Amino acid sequence: MNTSSSPSVDLPSVGTVEAQYFTCCEPANELVLKSGLKLGPITLAYETYGQLNEDKSNAILICHTLTSDAHAAGFHPGDKKPGWWEGMIGPGKAFDTNKYFVLSSNVLGSCKGSTGPASINPSTNKPYGLSLPFITIEDMVAAQKKLADHLGIRKFFSIAGGSMGGLQALIWAVHYPEAIHSAILIATNYRHTAQQIALHEVGRQAIMSDSDWQNGDYYGKTIPAKGLALARMIGHITYMSDKSMDEKFGRKLIGKEKLGYDFSHDFEVENYLKYRASNFVQRFDANSYLYISKALDYFDLAEDGELTDKFKKTLAHFLVISFTSDWLYPSYQSKELVRALKANDLDVSDCEINSTYGHDAFLVEIESQSKLVKHFLNRLQKEKSHGPSPNPSI
Amino acid sequence: MNTSSSPSVDLPSVGTVEAQYFTCCEPANELVLKSGLKLGPITLAYETYGQLNEDKSNAILICHTLTSDAHAAGFHPGDKKPGWWEGMIGPGKAFDTNKYFVLSSNVLGSCKGSTGPASINPSTNKPYGLSLPFITIEDMVAAQKKLADHLGIRKFFSIAGGSMGGLQALIWAVHYPEAIHSAILIATNYRHTAQQIALHEVGRQAIMSDSDWQNGDYYGKTIPAKGLALARMIGHITYMSDKSMDEKFGRKLIGKEKLGYDFSHDFEVENYLKYRASNFVQRFDANSYLYISKALDYFDLAEDGELTDKFKKTLAHFLVISFTSDWLYPSYQSKELVRALKANDLDVSDCEINSTYGHDAFLVEIESQSKLVKHFLNRLQKEKSHGPSPNPSI
Repeated sequence: MNTSSSPSVDLPSVGTVEAQYFTCCEPANELVLKSGLKLGPITLAYETYGQLNEDKSNAILICHTLTSDAHAAGFHPGDKKPGWWEGMIGPGKAFDTNKYFVLSSNVLGSCKGSTGPASINPSTNKPYGLSLPFITIEDMVAAQKKLADHLGIRKFFSIAGGSMGGLQALIWAVHYPEAIHSAILIATNYRHTAQQIALHEVGRQAIMSDSDWQNGDYYGKTIPAKGLALARMIGHITYMSDKSMDEKFGRKLIGKEKLGYDFSHDFEVENYLKYRASNFVQRFDANSYLYISKALDYFDLAEDGELTDKFKKTLAHFLVISFTSDWLYPSYQSKELVRALKANDLDVSDCEINSTYGHDAFLVEIESQSKLVKHFLNRLQKEKSHGPSPNPSI
Repeated sequence: MNTSSSPSVDLPSVGTVEAQYFTCCEPANELVLKSGLKLGPITLAYETYGQLNEDKSNAILICHTLTSDAHAAGFHPGDKKPGWWEGMIGPGKAFDTNKYFVLSSNVLGSCKGSTGPASINPSTNKPYGLSLPFITIEDMVAAQKKLADHLGIRKFFSIAGGSMGGLQALIWAVHYPEAIHSAILIATNYRHTAQQIALHEVGRQAIMSDSDWQNGDYYGKTIPAKGLALARMIGHITYMSDKSMDEKFGRKLIGKEKLGYDFSHDFEVENYLKYRASNFVQRFDANSYLYISKALDYFDLAEDGELTDKFKKTLAHFLVISFTSDWLYPSYQSKELVRALKANDLDVSDCEINSTYGHDAFLVEIESQSKLVKHFLNRLQKEKSHGPSPNPSI
């Protein structure tokens, strides 16, 4: 993902924030995973911005992507770089922390403070590695539900996310209909397609082909850096668009007057991929990449029937946003989802934003996205106070 | 590339064919490459189908893709699988061997019988490896020109190719205007874009990250099979489309009643990529993949000026074909090329074929493609006999 997005407007930040941790599900009360296996205890890292009101009705849950974390806004002490959705979360912003209590939760399986393959297995005192049970998106959401219960939040005013974050919001709407007033689904879909699976599979094979991977048992030894870097390079290409790569790099050469006629890097785009990949390798665990990418590929809301039937108990209001140049989660997939929601007479606002940024657009197109989110949340606020308007569509 | 394309019509094959070899450019008369380095002797593998007429005016040159070879039609003795463009080349087919002498030439840098990194360097009696000078598309074409001279073909009636084959045909039209009557450019462009470079670069990094690669000096030892397999997997994804992958695989499971909840393969698409990659590793050389993919990335017809200026001396008639679902060489790139050709008052017929097969369409959409090619060649034949028609567009 492009994490260079800066707030498009001169609105203040939530300022200094820090990670919090929630641990639950001791062995006697383990989390039963979709696979049937049990996991406990588990820890989730999370951050909060804004104040929870007295009746705990102003909470918004932010869900993140494959390789992101709970640090969605503000600055960690000493850091110059804000959270990954700084432009969207803060006083006066789309997720307005003057009004809302914003909760951002890291997912189960990650390496960013939550229980994942790099965590210590309390029964062996060694990192889990591949002995960690398989995690699904549904399991990530089940763990988030435990966190919400712990915080006393019975119903989120909204749950929002882009990419994998949108899948989590969708699962909330289907599995916990009473616990979610609205869902904001951005650049997402309802099942992983063959192309999405294939792109992930190459990344996984790159990691598992790295001789340093050692069947996932590399902690304390050499990490499978080459494989993880390749996985990230593929990822980066899918997060951008043909157009955005052309605008950003074109055929610009790096540090050379002319082509080198050898196998060193010639083009800026080559160096960019290398740079981003080497950064990523320092901050992310290869096994978490395997777990979470496979969780994404397993995701299929219609796996045992018709998609439209899945929303029979769903109560949430929906805002569905897609981007014209997103070829990883193309707009037609959002539209299929919208059709299924509307077939259930649910309140759905949908918009395809014109953007050249590809899948990364949800991190970059702050202004147009903010307008839609603000309007959607304001309308729902008004309706909560005064009843629904005759024409809810935006 | 999808090589499963079979002839769409019940037309006969050219039958049994065999590779031929042309060697030229002894040290005293080496080929001067675009880099300024010299290379010689060089060998090109080629095949021919049909008969060269007396005045040698009925020759059509077929140019191939990144990983293909000279075996475009017919069957090698004992083989059940025909050449890669069997549906297009043969008696009564688009490239009608009853009328034309079809020459299919393997490219310099390949591992399919022509001089490439796996070839023996006569001055060391060891494989070149990375000591082979860098090869460009222009160099491939310069070597083909030597082959044409050797065969006494002063002017090709047509030069045709898809993907990298189209780039070669384009270079012929620009560098040897007197030697080409017409060019058929399919699923191609006039310069490699940042996205195309990026996709190749991941493949190259996969090969060069493989500890068996050994800086290209692996001949007679373990080949960098894992890296080359990864490069091929990425390639395969780019040759298909989201839609064709969905139609062919969807979320179909392989050999399993249900998801495995582990990191083994679950989906048919995963197994397909693995299968195709392991086939490829047996038939292709990793260093050739580096050389030829980099040659593609270096390709930029407009590198030192305006594209339109490049065609000032060009005389050829053009047929330019693209496919709606080809995201590797999207139609807009063909259209840019068409505009530049037309700006030079050249005779250009262009068509975007509606297809779901992605970049592979030029290997699969035999019927619609044949219709266009036949019409184009027939018109040019007639014009040669009777002068141009008032409205040459098809």
